[in-house]
Amino acid sequence: QDTLVGKYGEGAKLIYELQDQGGELLALRYDLTVPFARYLAMNKITKMKRYHVAKVYRRDNPATTRGRYREFYQCDFDIAGQFDPMIPDAECLKIVHEILSDLQLGDFVIKVNDRRILNGVFAVCGVPESKFIPACCTVDKLDKVPWEEVRSEMVGEKGLSPEAADRIGEYVQLHGGLELIERLLQDPKLSQNKVAKEGLGDMKLLFEYLTLFGITGKISFDLSLARGLDYYTGVIFEAVLLQQENEHVEEAVSVGSVAGGGRYDGLVGMFDAKGRKVPCVGVSIGIERIFSILEQRLEASGEKLRTTETQVLVVTPQKHLLAARMKLISELWDAGIKAEMLYKKDPKLLKQLQYCEDTGIPLAAIVGEQELADGVVKLRDVATRKEVRM
Amino acid sequence: QDTLVGKYGEGAKLIYELQDQGGELLALRYDLTVPFARYLAMNKITKMKRYHVAKVYRRDNPATTRGRYREFYQCDFDIAGQFDPMIPDAECLKIVHEILSDLQLGDFVIKVNDRRILNGVFAVCGVPESKFIPACCTVDKLDKVPWEEVRSEMVGEKGLSPEAADRIGEYVQLHGGLELIERLLQDPKLSQNKVAKEGLGDMKLLFEYLTLFGITGKISFDLSLARGLDYYTGVIFEAVLLQQENEHVEEAVSVGSVAGGGRYDGLVGMFDAKGRKVPCVGVSIGIERIFSILEQRLEASGEKLRTTETQVLVVTPQKHLLAARMKLISELWDAGIKAEMLYKKDPKLLKQLQYCEDTGIPLAAIVGEQELADGVVKLRDVATRKEVRM
Repeated sequence: QDTLVGKYGEGAKLIYELQDQGGELLALRYDLTVPFARYLAMNKITKMKRYHVAKVYRRDNPATTRGRYREFYQCDFDIAGQFDPMIPDAECLKIVHEILSDLQLGDFVIKVNDRRILNGVFAVCGVPESKFIPACCTVDKLDKVPWEEVRSEMVGEKGLSPEAADRIGEYVQLHGGLELIERLLQDPKLSQNKVAKEGLGDMKLLFEYLTLFGITGKISFDLSLARGLDYYTGVIFEAVLLQQENEHVEEAVSVGSVAGGGRYDGLVGMFDAKGRKVPCVGVSIGIERIFSILEQRLEASGEKLRTTETQVLVVTPQKHLLAARMKLISELWDAGIKAEMLYKKDPKLLKQLQYCEDTGIPLAAIVGEQELADGVVKLRDVATRKEVRM
Repeated sequence: QDTLVGKYGEGAKLIYELQDQGGELLALRYDLTVPFARYLAMNKITKMKRYHVAKVYRRDNPATTRGRYREFYQCDFDIAGQFDPMIPDAECLKIVHEILSDLQLGDFVIKVNDRRILNGVFAVCGVPESKFIPACCTVDKLDKVPWEEVRSEMVGEKGLSPEAADRIGEYVQLHGGLELIERLLQDPKLSQNKVAKEGLGDMKLLFEYLTLFGITGKISFDLSLARGLDYYTGVIFEAVLLQQENEHVEEAVSVGSVAGGGRYDGLVGMFDAKGRKVPCVGVSIGIERIFSILEQRLEASGEKLRTTETQVLVVTPQKHLLAARMKLISELWDAGIKAEMLYKKDPKLLKQLQYCEDTGIPLAAIVGEQELADGVVKLRDVATRKEVRM
């Protein structure tokens, strides 16, 4: 408190101290989905499409090398509203596909499943409904640990019967495309389960839409995908980067999730006094993870990345020309050109050109005594050293 | 806690609860300046120019109508580093001038002063150094209350002698331009004060630079400007909007500050173990205030503002053409064109065109049975209803 008073003076009393909120129960934002749902409910909005890039907070052990922090950015895109089935869902997947392709992060796969299909699987395998969510969480680990371990957690910790676990195992190890969906729609047990059938029908529709979008090559219907969060009610998906650099590894190895999302039709209703529902589907892009991958790659490549967008440095080759530099830079700024100059009265020409090279500024606008007399500027291409008077 | 578990499931335990930080003393960010100084010191950065738009928090009584919130955005620009005098300072003022001009907020004035000039004034008026900062805070009120009130606070609350207060009053009611600076440089008392002389010399330099930038028309050297914050060490400034709509008011009336800043050469050193200083100058743009002004003006004008940038709506005039719409929108997205479509299988043509009008989408790309057969798209200008096949 004392050190803050030293910096802010009287203002310090306005600092939001977290350890004492004067009786107000406040928490830092944990994600962007729940606040979005609350926003829709509180403002009675029934239709909205938005993206949101903002910070969220987790009281977690940070693992900065893997891009995991306690304070980090999330980047979400959601479509809220009552629409025809799977059209917004397909758009979400198209967006994930577009982002990962454009960023050239390497090969990836987007795993897709549906909570209703999972619930149907659990039901036909004899799992009581109260154990659906715990079973979901266990199935979700299948991308990291072998089936045997998942099975023993189901039987040991979650109290499923060994027979139920074995039956689940037959389903959740399946992955494929449209043909798998068709096969499961004919499955004697699943096809009898109303919820699973709905989910499979929608999954088929989704794949048809993704075919129109031309992106099914990267999509995998994967029955092991469960995603831990409770609020998902329909389609769920997760994008995973594949590592294929190691030649000794025959199959592509997952290096982790970089995006995930799904449909949550019940969340908005939980914030509405009358329980009015607004169906939603959305995706969260793991931008911190993605940035950390891109930064590591850049570092490995030794390439230099420009950190500014400055187009031109205003340069003077002789002394006593600060006024000329200031006049010219002012004109450039007024014309919307990104210009810089060194904050020195009489910088050396070499220093100024060196600054261009160090920071990647492509052009130098040189105004010297001769140029001033002639009423021109000498524009120099820093890389080629070619100059034109203009 | 229970309701959060319902939404996040197992993840809820990771929520950062502010009332109990497990012994960690954490506070929400109060502004962007002090964290910037801390960042420079902790990373031993001696030179940096950056802008930062982010949320800050004040445990204050919100006044939302005047754009004052407890959680709000700040928008800062700062230049850190040891440079030749007043060059970065002039750039900060140029940027404020550019922002306020480009946003067309109406007439404004940027008041400029220097802490050293104020300190010099206090010194030559017989104020002890320990009372400089309290005296500063009182002087700062001169834009809201008449001199008599400021004077009585100085004498009553701050314990200045009536004579000192009167002498201060002669100085702090002055405002003007280069000629005022020149006059004060000749002032028999001030010109003897080393600190004031330095400040006036730099102020003169600043005005010369601002002349080169062509912006002195909106700049006022105003000795009453004090700015409350303790950390300022040199030039200080504040941009104020002027209201001239009311014809009964003869002089332009200030409607409040929309930007402010100054030089703070000591702040970084406060965060460095060895006290190494990094001189800084910066500006904070009151974007919440500015947005609230722009929104009020927009509402008053009755104009409609587009909230999306969608360039084209993909439209089908008959039923059973969802596939055609999805194929076309996918092509448009892939080409970087901002396109939307209604999330309905078979929307009515009129509904789709109405959507364009409601949301201001200028173009409709129509693909019907005829267009499909001909392999073309009909592009319709929503406003003029003109159509071209392409």
